[in-house]
Amino acid sequence: MIIDCHGHYTTAPKELENFRNAQIAALGDPQPQPTKGSLKISDDQIRAGLEGAQLKLQRERGTDVTIFSPRAMGMGHHIGNETTSRHWSEHCNDLIHRVCSLYPDNFVGVCQLPQTPGVSPRNCIRELERCVRELGFIGCNLNPDPSGGHWKDPPLTDRYWYPIYEKMAELDVPAMIHVSASCNPNFHATGAHYINGDTTAFMQFIMGDIFKDFPSLKFIIPHGGGAAPYHWGRYRGLAQDMGKPPLKELLLNNVFFDTCVYHQPGIDLLLRVIPTDNILFASEMVGAVRGIDPETGHYYDDTKRYIDAVTWISKEDKEKIFHRNVRKVYPRLAVKH
Amino acid sequence: MIIDCHGHYTTAPKELENFRNAQIAALGDPQPQPTKGSLKISDDQIRAGLEGAQLKLQRERGTDVTIFSPRAMGMGHHIGNETTSRHWSEHCNDLIHRVCSLYPDNFVGVCQLPQTPGVSPRNCIRELERCVRELGFIGCNLNPDPSGGHWKDPPLTDRYWYPIYEKMAELDVPAMIHVSASCNPNFHATGAHYINGDTTAFMQFIMGDIFKDFPSLKFIIPHGGGAAPYHWGRYRGLAQDMGKPPLKELLLNNVFFDTCVYHQPGIDLLLRVIPTDNILFASEMVGAVRGIDPETGHYYDDTKRYIDAVTWISKEDKEKIFHRNVRKVYPRLAVKH
Repeated sequence: MIIDCHGHYTTAPKELENFRNAQIAALGDPQPQPTKGSLKISDDQIRAGLEGAQLKLQRERGTDVTIFSPRAMGMGHHIGNETTSRHWSEHCNDLIHRVCSLYPDNFVGVCQLPQTPGVSPRNCIRELERCVRELGFIGCNLNPDPSGGHWKDPPLTDRYWYPIYEKMAELDVPAMIHVSASCNPNFHATGAHYINGDTTAFMQFIMGDIFKDFPSLKFIIPHGGGAAPYHWGRYRGLAQDMGKPPLKELLLNNVFFDTCVYHQPGIDLLLRVIPTDNILFASEMVGAVRGIDPETGHYYDDTKRYIDAVTWISKEDKEKIFHRNVRKVYPRLAVKH
Repeated sequence: MIIDCHGHYTTAPKELENFRNAQIAALGDPQPQPTKGSLKISDDQIRAGLEGAQLKLQRERGTDVTIFSPRAMGMGHHIGNETTSRHWSEHCNDLIHRVCSLYPDNFVGVCQLPQTPGVSPRNCIRELERCVRELGFIGCNLNPDPSGGHWKDPPLTDRYWYPIYEKMAELDVPAMIHVSASCNPNFHATGAHYINGDTTAFMQFIMGDIFKDFPSLKFIIPHGGGAAPYHWGRYRGLAQDMGKPPLKELLLNNVFFDTCVYHQPGIDLLLRVIPTDNILFASEMVGAVRGIDPETGHYYDDTKRYIDAVTWISKEDKEKIFHRNVRKVYPRLAVKH
């Protein structure tokens, strides 16, 4: 069994984008109460978008289940206001639910939250609860920077975020820390903002004390943990200089890394540095990098190949990475698979 | 010969900090024209700060020369205005010059630039010219985010920055890309802002075309290139998806990485992924991480040990990393050492 914990619905029918464009265009309208509107997408359209992409790649690469969420770049929490974000998130999450209902063996849902810069994450509780209790979702994506590259909300360890953590703890669902598009021209989205978001969140977790307040809370830092594993010595040293306990004790009961690292040396480092119990298999296909690596002849994002090529960890450790750890981090997954 | 290309004057006499505090305190004064003021520090005070720290560590670790610049965290380009920044930079650079004059065999100067958010880098030309032509400095530190964590100036590839690049090209000096303190509570300075700054700059260089306009320009991305080497596959793939040439051709004539990575697996990855010609030895001692790694019994930032421990690169390659490359990247170094 191979479970990919990080897939986004990047191949949704174009009606979704049309809806979003219309929603954004209407932001300038004088109407006092924007309407939620509706999305007309047939099951066949959904099937067509997946069959030639995610499902084909699952078959070709030999992965079984993808934990699936709305397109990260599309979340765009900085656009409009909290009503904009609520309507958009509900539509996106409903669509994920339809995908998971059409292909219950292949996809399990994770939701986008209706975050808005400067608006308390308390605002997201209703949608998280709806997705988990009504749609059977098993986690959420939490954007540490709803402003889209301006980093205006407090760090993730601030009490500002506690309402959503309380609900996550109650529902027993984890969050993947995942930024969305960047509207700061300094940050290329997938090349800088994503990786910086990961690195930033990791360092926030070192400094803060949220796991004392929420000992059961679990976060996945995607894209191989940003820069954290490569600079593991720096982070161990910084924590030590601050008088913190070793990283393992400080946060490795609560923080996990995915394997979205698109070359062999990077995966080798990840597996060498981070305890196997903290690594979850993921590819983020069909995502940031779509090409074939001329050096290997395979897709950059075919991360299973890199893990298969590692000879110095045991079969049991690989099973942890491929599916055992993910079941622990997403306890609600057990219900289905 | 071992040349450390990345050292900051982190052990300056406390008079420097007192001066800065007074300068900042005076920012609220109603006087129309702030005065530069003077700094009273004796040669003996300078010697005392270095003898028990950088010089002691050079001897203990067996490194010969440190390319030395003002404390990066102290640059604080976001504080005050361009006059504040000019006065402060002149004092800091003069102090580096005194260090290099007292210990000409041990230190070579690199300057801080009097950057200010929203003010053209043209403003920095005079100080760069003074430091190189009058003080014998061989390079500069360029802050890609003078706002200190708000990232409000244009990307490094924007024509906004061209005046300083023109002067760098004329003087034949490189720049190390180095942010300063963070005043955004999301970013821990050395744990997030520094590494994010490196990653961000690297991605900007992939997207922009400045090396077509400045084929001789050279940049050092410190802290092992931020996240870039760990995510080298991602960056190769992103460049490929954008229709850019391979990274080697796109930027490796102009972009170099230092070895400030504080554990063995990180250095192993760096040396495995990045061509040896693009790696410059550095430790950033006495810097971000000051402790001893309990796993090795040695200082985290004793990076020479990690490189010494690599058995799979040749003696010639190590000589490139330890001193040959740095002479190419800093052509003015040759005059002295």
